[in-house]
Amino acid sequence: MAASGGTTRDARRPDTPFWVDPEAVSDDRLLLDPDESRHLIRVHRAAVGVEFDAVDGLGHLYHCVLDSVERGVATGRIESRDVNSGELPFEIRLLIGIPDLGPVETVVEHAVPLGVTMIDFAVCARSGREPLAANRLDRLHRIARASLKQSRRTRLPELKSSPSLEAAVAALGAAEMRFVADAGGPPRIEPPPSRIQSVVALAVGPPGGFIDWELGVLRGAEFRPISLGPSRLTTETAALALTALARNSLL
Amino acid sequence: MAASGGTTRDARRPDTPFWVDPEAVSDDRLLLDPDESRHLIRVHRAAVGVEFDAVDGLGHLYHCVLDSVERGVATGRIESRDVNSGELPFEIRLLIGIPDLGPVETVVEHAVPLGVTMIDFAVCARSGREPLAANRLDRLHRIARASLKQSRRTRLPELKSSPSLEAAVAALGAAEMRFVADAGGPPRIEPPPSRIQSVVALAVGPPGGFIDWELGVLRGAEFRPISLGPSRLTTETAALALTALARNSLL
Repeated sequence: MAASGGTTRDARRPDTPFWVDPEAVSDDRLLLDPDESRHLIRVHRAAVGVEFDAVDGLGHLYHCVLDSVERGVATGRIESRDVNSGELPFEIRLLIGIPDLGPVETVVEHAVPLGVTMIDFAVCARSGREPLAANRLDRLHRIARASLKQSRRTRLPELKSSPSLEAAVAALGAAEMRFVADAGGPPRIEPPPSRIQSVVALAVGPPGGFIDWELGVLRGAEFRPISLGPSRLTTETAALALTALARNSLL
Repeated sequence: MAASGGTTRDARRPDTPFWVDPEAVSDDRLLLDPDESRHLIRVHRAAVGVEFDAVDGLGHLYHCVLDSVERGVATGRIESRDVNSGELPFEIRLLIGIPDLGPVETVVEHAVPLGVTMIDFAVCARSGREPLAANRLDRLHRIARASLKQSRRTRLPELKSSPSLEAAVAALGAAEMRFVADAGGPPRIEPPPSRIQSVVALAVGPPGGFIDWELGVLRGAEFRPISLGPSRLTTETAALALTALARNSLL
């Protein structure tokens, strides 16, 4: 049996990009922060001359060679750069009725690799919660960053928590197509004649679902219902299922 | 703001079915086991005369009235029964290259509500693992049962762990359509002219992916490639995305 990736990967070029702050990038050099430097040097045992990739969350993937390590900071020489590598040709913005905090993290962990560009955890009638606090959003940003690197995407999604569904819909901006998980709709998302090039918006209710008034708000804002089948899905499973369906149906 | 479901639900009819062993069902009565009885009586504070549902994992959903509680065992009078409630009109069988144990549980937790009828965690070249042991499969069965109840499905999926991909493919049986997550394919699953009525098989590689020889085995067994987009997905995210895509595309 082949050895698992985990035991042989250390000696090879790291296959997951490192995070680099956009302000730490110049024309031909970039500096990893102490945490990422330590990971490159200690975990991957990288020596000067080793190749690695770095991502800045703004759409840039840098192919680098380790140039120097000084006082725990790794400097990379930029050999080439890709723009929007790993990104879909359209944006996916998710409006989620806030579930419990575990499911909130599950949504971020799995929806980021699936290409979402914004997640708004909105307070809904059945959420029974206040908007997520700043320290909670910070934690979600760290999860999003780890998922971005792991998935080799390059644009870090925006994460927010609106005080109501109406506020979330109002803040959504223009979208070419809008869908809400709702048992009354058809199961399939038919691609439009010309490919989606800007934004697809997806809405999923909190545990217990949207109340009728909220469904009316969404219908008024041109969200079309899509059924996710005959079983009852949790908020997080429904969010991932609708995202997976939309991205592949519209690609 | 409305109270959350969790605080008001206790006083209402339980909205999640209870598990009942098929052998504990007679023509007009069923007996819940001590754990489920305790849950009904203590957590839901149910008194004689309360309505509840029970599911047997073989496709039956029983609508009951609590008849008596004796020595911790709740007996329900069966008022009516539904067959295959919450089930898709076709089977979904998943072949997954075994990932780490956390992701294995994530797949079961979220794929069961999405309607899968079988999951085979197969040893692949890059799994770096033995087949899952019996005690591990027992734990997965408990997760599957909880997910089945939560999702109001009625047929408990089969869970297994084949010693190789070839063994998993050989044990799969007949399937009308077969798909493998593979970047070389198209993104969409087109429904056939006549609806799928029997089995759809889906294959997803272990962390690091299938090796070429394994992809050859799948291609030889008529698995068609489906791309899950430009980012790199973990085994568990890919499994859920492909399941969500297939179920909705073929409904």
